[in-house]
This record gives sequence, structure tokens and C-alpha cells, in this order.
Amino acid sequence: MRIWRPAPKRLCCIAAIGRIVLATRIVILGGGFGGMYAARALQRRLGTVARIELINAENYFVFQPLLPEVGAGSITPANAVSPLRFLLRDVFVRKAVVDSVDFDKRIVTVFQGVQRRPTEVPYDHLVIGLGQTVDLSRMPGLEDHALKMKTLEDARRLRAHVIEQLEHAQITQLPEVKRSALTFCVVGGGFSGIETVGEMKELIDRSLKFYPDIDPAEVRVMVVEYANRILAEMPERLARYATDTLARHGIALKLGTGVASATGTHLVTTTGEVIDTRTIVATIGNAPSPVVQRMALPFDRGRIAVDRTLGVKNRPGVWALGDCALIPIKDGATGPRDFAPPTAQFAVREAKLLAENIAAAIEGKTPRPFSYKSRGALASLGARRGVAEVMGLQLTGFPAWLLWRFYYLAFLPGITTRIQVLLNWFMDGLSPRSVVQLRAHSPSAARYVHYRAGDQIYELGNRSDGFYTVISGAVEMTTTDPATGALRLRRIGPGDHFGERLILGATRRQTSVRAIEDTKVLVMDRDEFMKLAEGFSAFRDYFGPYMARHGMKWPPDSTTETRPEQ
Amino acid sequence: MRIWRPAPKRLCCIAAIGRIVLATRIVILGGGFGGMYAARALQRRLGTVARIELINAENYFVFQPLLPEVGAGSITPANAVSPLRFLLRDVFVRKAVVDSVDFDKRIVTVFQGVQRRPTEVPYDHLVIGLGQTVDLSRMPGLEDHALKMKTLEDARRLRAHVIEQLEHAQITQLPEVKRSALTFCVVGGGFSGIETVGEMKELIDRSLKFYPDIDPAEVRVMVVEYANRILAEMPERLARYATDTLARHGIALKLGTGVASATGTHLVTTTGEVIDTRTIVATIGNAPSPVVQRMALPFDRGRIAVDRTLGVKNRPGVWALGDCALIPIKDGATGPRDFAPPTAQFAVREAKLLAENIAAAIEGKTPRPFSYKSRGALASLGARRGVAEVMGLQLTGFPAWLLWRFYYLAFLPGITTRIQVLLNWFMDGLSPRSVVQLRAHSPSAARYVHYRAGDQIYELGNRSDGFYTVISGAVEMTTTDPATGALRLRRIGPGDHFGERLILGATRRQTSVRAIEDTKVLVMDRDEFMKLAEGFSAFRDYFGPYMARHGMKWPPDSTTETRPEQ
Repeated sequence: MRIWRPAPKRLCCIAAIGRIVLATRIVILGGGFGGMYAARALQRRLGTVARIELINAENYFVFQPLLPEVGAGSITPANAVSPLRFLLRDVFVRKAVVDSVDFDKRIVTVFQGVQRRPTEVPYDHLVIGLGQTVDLSRMPGLEDHALKMKTLEDARRLRAHVIEQLEHAQITQLPEVKRSALTFCVVGGGFSGIETVGEMKELIDRSLKFYPDIDPAEVRVMVVEYANRILAEMPERLARYATDTLARHGIALKLGTGVASATGTHLVTTTGEVIDTRTIVATIGNAPSPVVQRMALPFDRGRIAVDRTLGVKNRPGVWALGDCALIPIKDGATGPRDFAPPTAQFAVREAKLLAENIAAAIEGKTPRPFSYKSRGALASLGARRGVAEVMGLQLTGFPAWLLWRFYYLAFLPGITTRIQVLLNWFMDGLSPRSVVQLRAHSPSAARYVHYRAGDQIYELGNRSDGFYTVISGAVEMTTTDPATGALRLRRIGPGDHFGERLILGATRRQTSVRAIEDTKVLVMDRDEFMKLAEGFSAFRDYFGPYMARHGMKWPPDSTTETRPEQ
Repeated sequence: MRIWRPAPKRLCCIAAIGRIVLATRIVILGGGFGGMYAARALQRRLGTVARIELINAENYFVFQPLLPEVGAGSITPANAVSPLRFLLRDVFVRKAVVDSVDFDKRIVTVFQGVQRRPTEVPYDHLVIGLGQTVDLSRMPGLEDHALKMKTLEDARRLRAHVIEQLEHAQITQLPEVKRSALTFCVVGGGFSGIETVGEMKELIDRSLKFYPDIDPAEVRVMVVEYANRILAEMPERLARYATDTLARHGIALKLGTGVASATGTHLVTTTGEVIDTRTIVATIGNAPSPVVQRMALPFDRGRIAVDRTLGVKNRPGVWALGDCALIPIKDGATGPRDFAPPTAQFAVREAKLLAENIAAAIEGKTPRPFSYKSRGALASLGARRGVAEVMGLQLTGFPAWLLWRFYYLAFLPGITTRIQVLLNWFMDGLSPRSVVQLRAHSPSAARYVHYRAGDQIYELGNRSDGFYTVISGAVEMTTTDPATGALRLRRIGPGDHFGERLILGATRRQTSVRAIEDTKVLVMDRDEFMKLAEGFSAFRDYFGPYMARHGMKWPPDSTTETRPEQ
């Protein structure tokens, strides 16, 4: 029998100190650097007298600093993560989504698995380490068209997307398509943006030998950064070195430049430049996660306000750490440099203090204030170059890159993962980078697509790949009369549709459509439309007359028989 | 300059034989065992006088026999595939979806990349190696609820699904949920089904140490096979050994049993048994792919009818091989054993003959008929056991398993892949199997869900996770009057909806719903609904009165302002 029985061990300890009390319940929300290391430290410090539980939506810990390497294919996705159950052997790990917290009753409500029944998890001490999420909604089109670099899935998607552009550039015969396919933009010049652009450029450079019809000179890779320098967290000298190194490797920096808007084929900057690109990677836009926002906790600058002991103000027994918390590193903190930066290095340090302070609270002692001085910063620039500032020492180039690799290797949790990452690196050094483009093919939901005024949406003879509804803006449809060759123009505005022949099973467009204003559309594929038509009588009642008005028969004969009786 | 220039080399050769002719264009559709090996053989045999082009929807070759190991996590997905561009250095590889073939004009029309413009690819010889697809639509619910094992993505999804069940079983407090989460059914007892079930059981067994609240005795793994034995392609004695080995490892075989229907929580067999399970892996239902079906070619038993030279009947210059072709291995073939079986071993052999025969056709010689005697068959049973029949010799147990591994290692294309698979196996032998559950989170499209009469769809207080429309069958909604506690019942039939409070932002169910007949519903999440409501005025016009009829206000205030002007 393999039943989990921590209770006897715990009762022993409690009996040993001569009292019968219920074990203290410590619940940790989030399994990132803050939450995972807090769980480890708490288990070590209090495992015998408390029941430690960690709740996370995924069953694995993501080693964030390696995401750019996953995005570039130098290590496999599985090696940038570790199972939480493996890292936290004696901690109770619950894979569940946090719904809400009742701070008065001291209960966390979660939803777990496919089960829809809410589960209540009571706590005596609650640790909030839910990190941040990405919100790009302030810039029109960016949310719908940019790739992100926050989760493992983001990194996998980036790699597949880059390879897709190379595949496409290799075979297209249209120069403007080739140009936009070979233009890659990273938004944000912080650690994440710089490491991502460096790794991405290396992936492209190493892959080109498999794409003989792409001239390396056709590839454009750039970083768009709103500030006037990159790597704000690093000394000026290292940032300059990084700038030069990136430039030497063919990566352009556009400083003092923000994003105004984005479509599937353009990035428009705040300086008015229009960049033809099909790849926008946004490493900006950190925002509090919705569940943290819903908690009625003191908030400051988008983070949970804690005091220097990491305790949430006016909420005894509630603690916060990592990216979701605003942690003062000195008394009377006001300026941005008076608070702990949102880095893994700080989160791990916070986790250690947090465990001590919870122990102190349980034992009736005084908690200690957080204070930590960064040991330095490291950034990889791709192609075996890096910048590093460690204990006051500044390193650049290959030594900095090597230090970067070994620092993170040592930092990785678990010997197996370390060996596997090392093997990955070793094989990557010996053999060509694989250009396999792995994608998840899932049924596609309705999605928003943005166009600039003047963009051709589709042309006569194109593949019919979606049914469009105008949300805002306007498009113009051009129909050629098959008999006379005369052109007819039709303006289509908000609430109206185009591309509806797809629904009738047409595989080729019989018209051309162009955006005449900046336009946002909702695109739906045929499968999705047919499901809705099957489910909603209102949909059918609307589309019958609509199609008749445009000279088409609805429902098409082939689907009549599959519709349910009404 | 890295421009691809095969032309000069080719022209040289043509000049050398003293004539000026256009190079013969050979186009291969499909990059599986048939297509990929045909491209290799053709390049080797005719690369100097012909332009060889391979068209495939993915840019990689899948090593199908390793998919069960990917599904069980003993090798990483990237190692079961190789980039086609890497395997076929001098072949022109086009990542594109085949739309249609005009056999009279000798033109293939494809759609490539995000580009919607059709591209025409002319050919002199066309090789069709498009394999087969899976069609489960004959068994109600199976298409919507079964996992498949045909593509790399299927294998990845299976692994994530199995781990999800363990995660859920570990934390659920409902015995019936735990029971169905820990019941795993594989449908089909052929090579794919048996290897999948063996590997899946090994994954579960090796993972259980991380799930202390799961008793191994609670895990049920079974194979459902319509015939009266498994591994029909192998000698009776080996099939019996396999049966015994699987049974000894706790895998039940249900022979003479087919699938009648499936839901998300049940599998109903043709013998009337109802199995509580959340995991159904279907390895049955091979069917021709839609693009092959659309080709106006002679068809026989769901495959393209070719003569013994692999030429398609009455279509000079068109050839077919692999799973999509019905290839007689003797003259006057009629019975199932008179045709080449759909295995990798045969496909590779067919590819070699095909190259010779196309060369013969070009050189005006007589093509040769296909004939090949299987060198044997191998199957892994998981947990280091296997069965093998090689050159008349029958092996079982560990030696057969070892032979299986090394046979496929030798068969793998490319030395890098071989080393990586070997490293994977080595690490897998040394370290615990990772239980990381990687999933693709994509916006979810509307989907069909099936219920059996009596199934609880959701209960009061459950998480609101979808808006439901009844397609067929009927459900009963129970509402409790908050004042009196009295129950009200409402029957909901085809075309009607339930769960609509989700649209208003409710996070918990305020009613309970149960299927009172076998029921099929369309489920949509809130995001999808809101997008449709934004796009379609008909949707809003319908839901206003509908919601009012059920005492709810529509549109909810929060969304009013985001709706477009009409």
C-alpha cells in the first residue's frame, strides 16, 4: 500500500513537545520561483509541525531564464521545467486553479481537474506567489497578433513560428511576402527581450543552411525599446557592449521607440514607422494576474503591498512574495529602486526569509525585515556571447556567456534536469539545430484580426479560409462580373459579413476584399460556423434571409440533413 | 550567397548526353515512410536528370513506430521526428497543403504558409504517398471523446492526458471520479494498440511514486479488441505470449468486444458493458484522407488501386505507395493477404521499387512488379518485454524487446537522431520518468459533448465553465427556490440552451442539470460567446428576448460599451 501518511510522523513530533494541537496549515499559491522555493524552505523548517500544501495550475515548475533557449530550440521544452512533485517530495501538491480566497474565514477555494465542484482548502498561513501575467491590450492589435515569452507554451510557439517563416520564405514567389516573413521584431529591451532576440537570431542563422533560397542578407531582426537604452538593470558599459555585440550579429536596435499598433503583417511604431513583419514578440506589459486583482488586498503599483517582513499589510497570516508583491528593501521606501526587483534571484531570497518569518510567527518570535543586495546580473546575447556583472566584476563575451550557462545549470533544481540540459547543450554544439516545426493543431475558435487601411484582406482565387464579420472600420469588396468583366464595389461596415461563400463549401474566393479604414474583424472557420448553425436556430434564421439577399442559398443542401429536428 | 542552384549541375549532365531537354519533374505528395524514402531513392537514382520535389503539410518526417514511446514519455517528441530538409538535402521540399490534382494538365495545386494564394506545381511523374487518416464517426461519441495515436501531436496529447488523470486521482475526494480517472482503455489490439497500452501502463507504474494517495490496485488498464485475438499479423504463439505478458502486468484484454458508443466518462461496448473511464485511446478506424478521396482515381477497399508496378491504373505517370495504396503482391490478387500490408517495412521497400520503375519509365524500359516477403514483425509490450518473429525465428521477453529497440534505432534516419534517442533511453533507464504535464492552452472552439441518459452534467455550486445548447436528446434542469426550498424541474430539448448565466459573468452554477436521454450538446466558453455576441447582431437580437424570458438581463452592462456601433 502506497498511501500517503504524513500524519503519524507529525503527531509524534507534536506529542514529543507535550501538547495535542492540530498541525498548522500553510498553503502556498503559485509554483514559480517564489512559491516553489518557499514551499521547500517551509518544509525544511516546519515540515514536522505544519502541513505544507502548494497549489499551482500546472504540475511543473518553469525555469524561466531558459525560456529563450527553448524558443530557439537549443534545449527541449521538457528540460526547462521540473515536476513540482519531484522537487517537493513531502509537500502536498495540488494541481488546481485558484478561484478566490476568503481572508476572514481563512479558506482558499479552488477548482481542480475536470471536476467542476469547488474544493475548499483551509489555511492558517497563506503565501501568495502568483507572479504576473501579460496584458498588451493598451496597444491596438498587439494582444491579437504578438507572441509572448512568459510560459513554456509561449516559447514552444515562438520556435514553431520562426521556423514557419523560414519555410514560407523558402518557397514563396512574392517578394513582399518574403520580406515580411524574414523580418522579426522583439518588443522590449530588458533581459527577456535581449535574450530572446539573441537566441532567435542564432536559431535563424543556424537554420539557414536548410533553406537555400533565403539569402542571409534578406533576414532582418530588430528590438524595439521605448527607453533610450537596453538592459536598464545593468551598468551602462555592459549595455553598450551588448548593443555593439547585437549590432555585429545583425540585430538592429530601435531605441526611444514604442509600439503604436500591430496587425498580422505590420508593426507601427510610436515614431510613425511601419515595419512589414509577421513576427512580433512582446516581452513587455507585465500586469497583475486576474485572481490577484480580485483579492481585496492592499495594492500598490499593480502589486500586493507587503511590509518588510513580507506580511500583507493589515492581514495577519497572509504573506506575499515574488513578482506579485511590492517588497520594500528599506524603510520609508518610495522610489522604484527602494523595492525588490522582480527577478528569480530575489524571489529565492524572499522565499528563505518568508519561511523564517512564518516560523517566527508560529513560535511567537519577531519576524525579520527583508534586505538583500543583488549578487549581480547575467544576460546571454546568443551566439556564445554574454554580459555579466558579478560581485562588482564586469565580464563580456564568451566568458560571460559561459558563466551564464553554468550559473543557471547550477541553479536548476534536480540533478536529472541538470544532466539533461547539459546533454542538450552538448548535442546542440555538435549537431545542426533541428528545424522541425512542431505545432499544436487544435480546432480554432473565433479570433480577432486587425488590418491597416489599404491592406488587401484576400484576393480573387485565394483559398477560402474564414468567414469574416466587421467589428470596426470598413472594407471594400470588389466583384468582377463574369460576363462583362465589369467591376462592382461594395462597402462593408460594422456588423456586416464577407467571405460567406466559405459556408457554402467554396474553397476559392470569388471576390477581392481590401480594408479602406483601419479595421478589426472577427474570423471564424467553416467548422465553427457549422457547429453554431447546428446549435442555434437564431443563427439559421438570420443567415437564411442574409444569404438570399446576397444571392446565395442557405442552408446548403449537404448540411440540411445533419441539422436536428426543430 | 547561399542561393540554391541545382540547375547548372543538371544541365551539365544533360549536355553531356548531347541533348537539350527540360529536366523531368517528379513531384511526391506526402513525407511519411513511403514518400520520404521514395524521394531519397529518386534523388539517388535520378537526381542528375530530374528535379525531385516533395510536398508535405509538416516540415518533418514522423518515425511512427516510436509514437507509443513519445506517448509514454520515454523519448521526447522532437526525437521521434526528423526535419525533411535534413533527410532530403538535395530534394526541393515544399511545406504546403495539397488542395487538388489536375491529372490531365499534370498540375498539383497547393496552399503554402499563411499565404492564401494557390500555387501550381507542374509534374511529369506524380507519386502519391499521403497515408491514411482516422475516422471514428461510425461510433457515436468516439470522434469527440477518444484520443488517437496517429500523429506526433496525438502522442503528446496522450501523455499529458494520462498525467492529468493521475493528478486528478491524487487530489479528488469523490470515489467515482477517482475510479474513472484511473481507468484507461485502448481500443484496438493491433501493433499500435498493444504497444500503446504497454507503454502507457509503464508510464503509469513508474509515475505512481509521485502520487502517494493512489493505490496501484486502483489502476485499471485494458484493451478492447473486436477480433478474438490480438496482434493478428503475428503467429498465434507470440500473440498468446503477449496476452499472458500483458495480463501479468495488469493489463486486461477484452476480446470479441467492440465499441458501441463513448462519452467523456464512459465507454459502452458492443457486449453491453459500461466502463467508467475518462481515457479512451482509439487505434482503429483507418480511412483514406480527404484529399485522396477527392482525387478521381480508381479506388478499391478505401485505397488507390495500383498495378504491381505501383502505377495507378489507367493514369500513366501517376504512382502510389504506402498506406494510401492497394498494392497487389501477386497476380490476380483478391484476398486480404494478396496485398501489401500497411507497414513501414513494406513502404520502404515499395519506395525503392518505385524509384526504379520511374527511372525505367523515363528510360523507356519495362517496370518491374512489386514482390517482397516480410522479414518479420516486432512488438514492444512495455516494461522491457516484447515479441518478435524474425526470419522464421520467434523471440519473446527481454531479448525481443532489445531487438525491437535496436532494430528501430538502426532504422531511424540520421545519426543525430539515433544518438539522441539512445541518450533518451539511457537517461530514462537511470532516472525517474518525468510527470510534467505539458499542454497546449489554446482558445477553445465550440465542441460537442455526449452524455448517457442519467449522467449529471453539472450540479448546484459547480464552476460555470460553458454555455450549453442541446443538439439531440433531452436534459432536465432542477432549480431550488431560495425562499421555500421547493424544487422546480424544467425539460430542455433540441435547440434550447442551459448554463446561460455564465454569459452574465456567473462563476457558479445556480441549478443542476442531468441528461434524461442520451444527449449530444454543443458547449461554448464565455470568451467565444462574447466574441459572437460582439460580431453578430442576430445573436444579440435572439439572446435579448431569450434571456428576458428566463428572467435575466441581456446584454450584461459590462459588455454594452464594448459593442460596436450599428
